[in-house]
Amino acid sequence: MNASLLINENHRIQTQQLDVPPRLLLGPGPSNAHPRVLQALGMRQIGHLDPQFIELMNEIQSLLKYAWQTDNPLTIPVSATGSAAMEGTLANTIEAGDVVLVGINGYFGHRLVDMAGRYGADVRKLTKPWGEVFNLDELRAGLEEHRPAILALVHAETSTGACQPLEDVGDLCREYDCLLLADTVTSLGGVPLLLDEWGVDMAYSGSQKCLSCPPGIAPFTLGPRAVNKLSQRKTPVPNWYLDMALVAQYWGTERTYHHTAPINMNYALREALRLVADEGLEARWARHRHTAELFWEGLAEMGIKCHVEAQYRLPSLTTVCIPEGIDGKAVTRQLLANYNIEIGNGLGELAGKAWRVGLMGFNSRPENVTLLLTALKEVLAKEGYSAS
Amino acid sequence: MNASLLINENHRIQTQQLDVPPRLLLGPGPSNAHPRVLQALGMRQIGHLDPQFIELMNEIQSLLKYAWQTDNPLTIPVSATGSAAMEGTLANTIEAGDVVLVGINGYFGHRLVDMAGRYGADVRKLTKPWGEVFNLDELRAGLEEHRPAILALVHAETSTGACQPLEDVGDLCREYDCLLLADTVTSLGGVPLLLDEWGVDMAYSGSQKCLSCPPGIAPFTLGPRAVNKLSQRKTPVPNWYLDMALVAQYWGTERTYHHTAPINMNYALREALRLVADEGLEARWARHRHTAELFWEGLAEMGIKCHVEAQYRLPSLTTVCIPEGIDGKAVTRQLLANYNIEIGNGLGELAGKAWRVGLMGFNSRPENVTLLLTALKEVLAKEGYSAS
Repeated sequence: MNASLLINENHRIQTQQLDVPPRLLLGPGPSNAHPRVLQALGMRQIGHLDPQFIELMNEIQSLLKYAWQTDNPLTIPVSATGSAAMEGTLANTIEAGDVVLVGINGYFGHRLVDMAGRYGADVRKLTKPWGEVFNLDELRAGLEEHRPAILALVHAETSTGACQPLEDVGDLCREYDCLLLADTVTSLGGVPLLLDEWGVDMAYSGSQKCLSCPPGIAPFTLGPRAVNKLSQRKTPVPNWYLDMALVAQYWGTERTYHHTAPINMNYALREALRLVADEGLEARWARHRHTAELFWEGLAEMGIKCHVEAQYRLPSLTTVCIPEGIDGKAVTRQLLANYNIEIGNGLGELAGKAWRVGLMGFNSRPENVTLLLTALKEVLAKEGYSAS
Repeated sequence: MNASLLINENHRIQTQQLDVPPRLLLGPGPSNAHPRVLQALGMRQIGHLDPQFIELMNEIQSLLKYAWQTDNPLTIPVSATGSAAMEGTLANTIEAGDVVLVGINGYFGHRLVDMAGRYGADVRKLTKPWGEVFNLDELRAGLEEHRPAILALVHAETSTGACQPLEDVGDLCREYDCLLLADTVTSLGGVPLLLDEWGVDMAYSGSQKCLSCPPGIAPFTLGPRAVNKLSQRKTPVPNWYLDMALVAQYWGTERTYHHTAPINMNYALREALRLVADEGLEARWARHRHTAELFWEGLAEMGIKCHVEAQYRLPSLTTVCIPEGIDGKAVTRQLLANYNIEIGNGLGELAGKAWRVGLMGFNSRPENVTLLLTALKEVLAKEGYSAS
């Protein structure tokens, strides 16, 4: 074959069989996948139009509705990571010129602004310091002033550890004829979340947080009011991959090919959602709460504060104030190198001020708190910290 | 907890532990993953910014450059399926009003048209019957007439089984100051493909074809001329998730967080690419060719024709003409139900006229040809077919 003369061998590098350190992932995500989920992930494939796969798809949709507490028919996993599902909510419902009001009290509010702008929205902002949340009066004032088509709020801010209360926000949005969008990336499966009860019209999440599934597939839902806005669009959705008018034909009764579904990631998500159903939402939420409280108590005993006020603290993600004089990154580096524990550094306004500790899904267990607190104590002692 | 009163149990369905039939996937994709790939897929996770993961990322980039025969620094896996990588090439390089000339000789040409239109391109079309390819004179005439910014061709048309020759097309595009985009979904890792030698400026692929990796991660590359167009954009990329100006900062030296990489899918792709490097491209291309020829010979002995002329036939995907009087879908149904073999029905112009048979990656083995031909013979006999 003549081609053989032309083969460039420069990039044909020698590599080793895959091996990775046994990390305990207690950062902002990914969390460790549940062993049952990893087992499902490695199952042999079937085709994306195989009748057996279609049965699995139906199961995934049901279980996802349970986890999110919604009856929305358009509840599916997007074939990408959570950021794509986030973009999907905006891409499908924004038409150029629509006013979108974004609550910004952390990193992901800024991302919503960036994304919405790319879809031609007239983006308005409500801002609060990182780690605080919006109350109903503030939201009402914002709706009154901006009269948006969409109000976007982050239910669980992964960058700050704050939980935005959403009770009654849906009613408020209906009063102002506005859709309510909620980022539930770090709440789904770990933090009380009742989409329909709260009147959330669109939501997205990630698989790699409280669901304990690897990243690469992302829960997505549109309620009837959002679907209505989608169906009345004057222009096509300016994003082919995330166009729910097309994707819904594959997940709906038509089963029309759109793109090849990520088969094994769907296996994994199904198993993760089965674990949620097996445990039950109330028990799961209580477990996350209990584990987080153990951690918070341990921090308090060490004289270390949390960044977020107790009543708005996410059980799934805690922003831990770095004690004065301590180099936060030196601590995360030592935890990783000497204990195989990953925790996160602060992002944005909290960079250098806080660590981010996730106790999510399978990882939300007391023994992980014990290990982390002990390791943290040892590392901080080396760094010269003593509780005052 | 008061919330417990509100829990909707309707969707908390009972499900069984995951089990799927042992399908032999000989359709247009997904193909069966290599066992080594499935094993890597199920490996425990590490974080997407873990130093160990960054090493794996570097290896993936090198091995992907080898498989594609390119030195393009911006050679990465997109965190979604092949269709998203396809959209990524267009989203990053099209600015509203750019003329994009698309060669349409199958389903995926139409998809390129749909996608390019959503990004505001002035789309022009070169068309040929499904299963044929464009020659250099036809391409030159198209460039002369339309003077496009981008010429988009499908190297391996999964809907028709035709292989579009690309030798000298890059030179032609340079003559007309135009970027060359190639769909290599069904060729990468199975069919001779020399991106740099042929002057291809941007390409995408899928993991679930000749690479024998599950779907959910997608090879993507932009050459220097395409990167130049991206860097000179007057408007932001109208797609956040696929914005290579951002994604490249995670895959480049900055390692800036953009989205959470699909860790386990990256493990799997790395293993799939290691298999390509272990075997060597020439041997791999020869194996695909040899297996396909066995299949074509077997069909000929049965008096069954292939849709594509021999010299343009893809070794990875064959469109098999359904013999007159035979119900094509009845045959695919029986192959699945009675032999656990998946082959594909025809798409678009070939619906009802052809089957699509993939012999890709790990599945490109003589014993699979033997089994398929035998099963096909048995099913066709039941359906009343006899070779004339």
